[in-house]
Amino acid sequence: MQSLGWTLQEWQDAYSAGQQPEQLLGELLRAQSLDDVAWISLIEPVTLAAECARLQARLAEAGSLAALPLYGVPFAVKDNIDVAGLPTTAACPAFRYLPEQDAGVVARLRAAGAVVLGKSNLDQFATGLVGTRSPYGAVPNSVNADYVCGGSSAGSASLVARGLVPFALGTDTAGSGRVPAGFNNLVGWKPTRGAISCRGVVPACKSLDCVSLFTLTVADAEQLALIAYGEDASDPFSRASQGAVVPRRGSIPTLGVPRQLAWFGDEAQRLGFEAACATLAAQGVQLVEVDYQPFAELAHLLYEGPWLAERRVALAEFLAGHRDEMDPVVAGIIAQADGLRATEAFAAEYRRQALKARIQQQLGQLDALLLPTAPRLPTLAQVRADPVVVNSQLGHYCNWVNLADCCALSLPAGFRPDGLPLGVTLVAPAWQEWALARLAKPLAAGLNLPLGATGRPAPSAPSGTVLAPDHQVLAVVGAHLSGQPLNHQLTDLGGYLLETSRSAPHYRLFALADGRRPALVAGRTPGAAIELELWALPKAAWADLLARVPSPLGLGSVQLADGRRVAGFICEPLALEGARDITAHGSWRAYLAAQAQPARQPGRVAC
Amino acid sequence: MQSLGWTLQEWQDAYSAGQQPEQLLGELLRAQSLDDVAWISLIEPVTLAAECARLQARLAEAGSLAALPLYGVPFAVKDNIDVAGLPTTAACPAFRYLPEQDAGVVARLRAAGAVVLGKSNLDQFATGLVGTRSPYGAVPNSVNADYVCGGSSAGSASLVARGLVPFALGTDTAGSGRVPAGFNNLVGWKPTRGAISCRGVVPACKSLDCVSLFTLTVADAEQLALIAYGEDASDPFSRASQGAVVPRRGSIPTLGVPRQLAWFGDEAQRLGFEAACATLAAQGVQLVEVDYQPFAELAHLLYEGPWLAERRVALAEFLAGHRDEMDPVVAGIIAQADGLRATEAFAAEYRRQALKARIQQQLGQLDALLLPTAPRLPTLAQVRADPVVVNSQLGHYCNWVNLADCCALSLPAGFRPDGLPLGVTLVAPAWQEWALARLAKPLAAGLNLPLGATGRPAPSAPSGTVLAPDHQVLAVVGAHLSGQPLNHQLTDLGGYLLETSRSAPHYRLFALADGRRPALVAGRTPGAAIELELWALPKAAWADLLARVPSPLGLGSVQLADGRRVAGFICEPLALEGARDITAHGSWRAYLAAQAQPARQPGRVAC
Repeated sequence: MQSLGWTLQEWQDAYSAGQQPEQLLGELLRAQSLDDVAWISLIEPVTLAAECARLQARLAEAGSLAALPLYGVPFAVKDNIDVAGLPTTAACPAFRYLPEQDAGVVARLRAAGAVVLGKSNLDQFATGLVGTRSPYGAVPNSVNADYVCGGSSAGSASLVARGLVPFALGTDTAGSGRVPAGFNNLVGWKPTRGAISCRGVVPACKSLDCVSLFTLTVADAEQLALIAYGEDASDPFSRASQGAVVPRRGSIPTLGVPRQLAWFGDEAQRLGFEAACATLAAQGVQLVEVDYQPFAELAHLLYEGPWLAERRVALAEFLAGHRDEMDPVVAGIIAQADGLRATEAFAAEYRRQALKARIQQQLGQLDALLLPTAPRLPTLAQVRADPVVVNSQLGHYCNWVNLADCCALSLPAGFRPDGLPLGVTLVAPAWQEWALARLAKPLAAGLNLPLGATGRPAPSAPSGTVLAPDHQVLAVVGAHLSGQPLNHQLTDLGGYLLETSRSAPHYRLFALADGRRPALVAGRTPGAAIELELWALPKAAWADLLARVPSPLGLGSVQLADGRRVAGFICEPLALEGARDITAHGSWRAYLAAQAQPARQPGRVAC
Repeated sequence: MQSLGWTLQEWQDAYSAGQQPEQLLGELLRAQSLDDVAWISLIEPVTLAAECARLQARLAEAGSLAALPLYGVPFAVKDNIDVAGLPTTAACPAFRYLPEQDAGVVARLRAAGAVVLGKSNLDQFATGLVGTRSPYGAVPNSVNADYVCGGSSAGSASLVARGLVPFALGTDTAGSGRVPAGFNNLVGWKPTRGAISCRGVVPACKSLDCVSLFTLTVADAEQLALIAYGEDASDPFSRASQGAVVPRRGSIPTLGVPRQLAWFGDEAQRLGFEAACATLAAQGVQLVEVDYQPFAELAHLLYEGPWLAERRVALAEFLAGHRDEMDPVVAGIIAQADGLRATEAFAAEYRRQALKARIQQQLGQLDALLLPTAPRLPTLAQVRADPVVVNSQLGHYCNWVNLADCCALSLPAGFRPDGLPLGVTLVAPAWQEWALARLAKPLAAGLNLPLGATGRPAPSAPSGTVLAPDHQVLAVVGAHLSGQPLNHQLTDLGGYLLETSRSAPHYRLFALADGRRPALVAGRTPGAAIELELWALPKAAWADLLARVPSPLGLGSVQLADGRRVAGFICEPLALEGARDITAHGSWRAYLAAQAQPARQPGRVAC
């Protein structure tokens, strides 16, 4: 099967090259089997054919693949997320129902052209981090079948790791979108709570649940997140994106690592993490120790505190009539909630708020927190021997993240001495996942690991940087360029470089009379395509940037060589008094370099 | 006593005119008495003298009253808010303790020069909306002593209404900062949850509690809020201000009024509210009916749902040993929490989220919701006869506001046929209180009511508009001026007019070649002080505004006649091609008017 192990980018490239969904997806579906413990259900071939026909009609109407960014891209959906026409079981056959509507996130992905291939196995009711608590079978690790896959989104992770789909949806309440990513050499994107609609998702802890993404590369996850994110008025826990201003702390990323690391006896996991840290340090990342006590306390609070009652509320009616039809471990855990009192719920909520405030304060000193995704990677036999305790150990580095209102990105970080994957997780406050992705991409490129369990090498060309939500493009030509004296104004305000570009050819570049700043000036007569940089700046920061721009400079609109108009620095007419035309240099940097070699200085131009 | 009934503004004017705190405050303190049921404790004269001496030293050091905006302004503090050196009782003598530190909000106000005069009476543990549940005595209404004052911030409201202090702090969980304002012809400012620090406040429902402000005028509350607001890292429920973009819905304010109004038999309250609505409609406000069902359901949820358990948690240890020393009604209410389960808490939380989403959606169609502050104004005898039921009726229009994450402003709106005050409350989503104040000020000016129960007339000159937090000033000179074609861009983005002003005299005004827009151009040579308007625009909106400004215009910095530099429209050099110098007109409006009279048109100027 040609598409085995393809990244999202490769699927897109295949369609750009003229391949057809019916052929590619038909072949892919024939390669799948319900004997594969990762699947709970698969789409019928006839349904797939109809879906492909509809897609082709949509493409014909849209006229271009750009309108359908996920055209014909297959994906798996964790079976606690509704897909119209496929049963939802939450890995409990007695709970099975046939939804009429797609979940909010599925609808968004399908609107972009993606195709659901089937529903994937999970720890029942997403209650577990092991991937074994399912009557559809325990999902083995994709690298070594003696080990667990990790859960609860086990099937989704297994399918992506083995290259059977390029991406899959999971859910993540306590770590279910990260632990299986870490155990299978995958990227696990755990969004900010409320960023992706949970309408049509079987609730675990409704106040904490997130839909998560599994992919082979960070760039794939980033591209999917741009499509999957969006406020949904029909999900009361949905939130509007806030676009915080997150200053970069310097040119070197600063990652916090817990002073107190727990491994629960898994020496290989410790060695793997230490090796990963050493590699990151060698890549130039600054690692600083942080006190993990408040994080660990909050992690404990999730499983020992009143949030268990949320799982009980979610299953209230079902549990009354079907307790015997549930996984006994899951049923036993959820039953504990019956004794909890409302006063305990509020007392725990207060403790949560206090710990969250401390954690946010600690995270404010860092670009991100760097954690082992899990403290150990147990065998299936170890989990069978002590299913509750081993499971709860796996949440040590995950459980607190949603309670503290953080986003997280689990990344492949190498292999342990025993050949099993070692995952690390970057964590930051809500709405900073795009910053995490920007941190992660060069780290991943430096590691150059194979993709999942496919054995395929990572794509060699690093993908470009995306414009994060709530950001706007700013063109800079002078003192705000990378490395120039005022560039820190952009990074202080959370800006980041998108690309180097050029202006349209009708601009002239002037050096202001002070000699320290240039001005880009549009004219009717030909000038030159001046070199510029395009930066992404949080929308929330533009007022502050403007307040720092002294007269006679300002912000207006600049036309690029490709015809686009973006915001950029402009100048008032007064600026040209005593300024010199340096258009011939083509860029401020070239002019500065020439200044350092006075012989090549161009003549003064009157204006 | 000369200062009786003074507004904050009048206190500030007195000090500007050279009056001294020691004399004014000494006289004011001598006029107070602990026989007044509104007070629980008063500052000692010797402490006041020392405080005045410290203030004078601070003024001498600062050099100007501008550095101490509340210099020598006295205030009362509800006795569930800590003031260092005065006991905190929460109206329960057995609970009494002597705090060493000021509460966060008290510290901010004192840092600005305000002086605590004493601690005010309340419904015990802020559990009540009547003002009668206190061993220190039932606080009577300031207009008619047969009626309740309203609570729980009864003492604070009574003192401000009678002019004994210009402002007072209350707290507001279910309406305690609004009901007593409505019953005593006062302004009650209920901030967004978390906007004012609750550090040092005895919790009622910690997840909902707010510190509130009582004043005689909206302008006073607005000025105080600017000082009292601020994120506090030591309060886990504190929140950073978010500066949402709130588009104005048009030039006429649109207020929603419940289709279903409940009065619980109080005909005078109904007549009062209908008269207030008629007056507002006559002032040009558009009143539209809204379905109050979700609001009413959420209001019920507060008293009948699990939030009671928060009060139980707050008093956990105290209640164990002191139940007999509590007000029996309060103790009885709080004891009900013991039977509540954690599952009920989460189920109610889910219902809250769903109702909140519906409410936010409804509020999104309005400039604000307009409600009676309370559905009835009971007598003290009526409350004695049925203390729980009458109390809970008073929360009908208040209880839901914190659960739905809204801010509110209770305003005097006239007098009922029986001469008692009628309060109305404006409600809007979180962080929109400054927009509520802008709505309220012209309404209050139109009503022209006496101040509180003082009999003093409202100040005749309406105070200016303040720059709300998270807003920045923008100078506009042309198509964005009020009434001009692009002005809607500012109002669509939540902008509002601050004042009309003039540029520094070194500017020239040009009409661009298209004839539809001018450009303000700074020069070295004398020009003219061009008329401009200063608008406040949410910081979150500047990126979007810039994206709407077409080349060759842009945003930069403009110097005003008073020397200040603010952001404003500028133009690129290219803009002056074919433009005509219209500086002599002094303003774009004058030029347009002259264009309508061609005979007076000035000649074209080459540039």
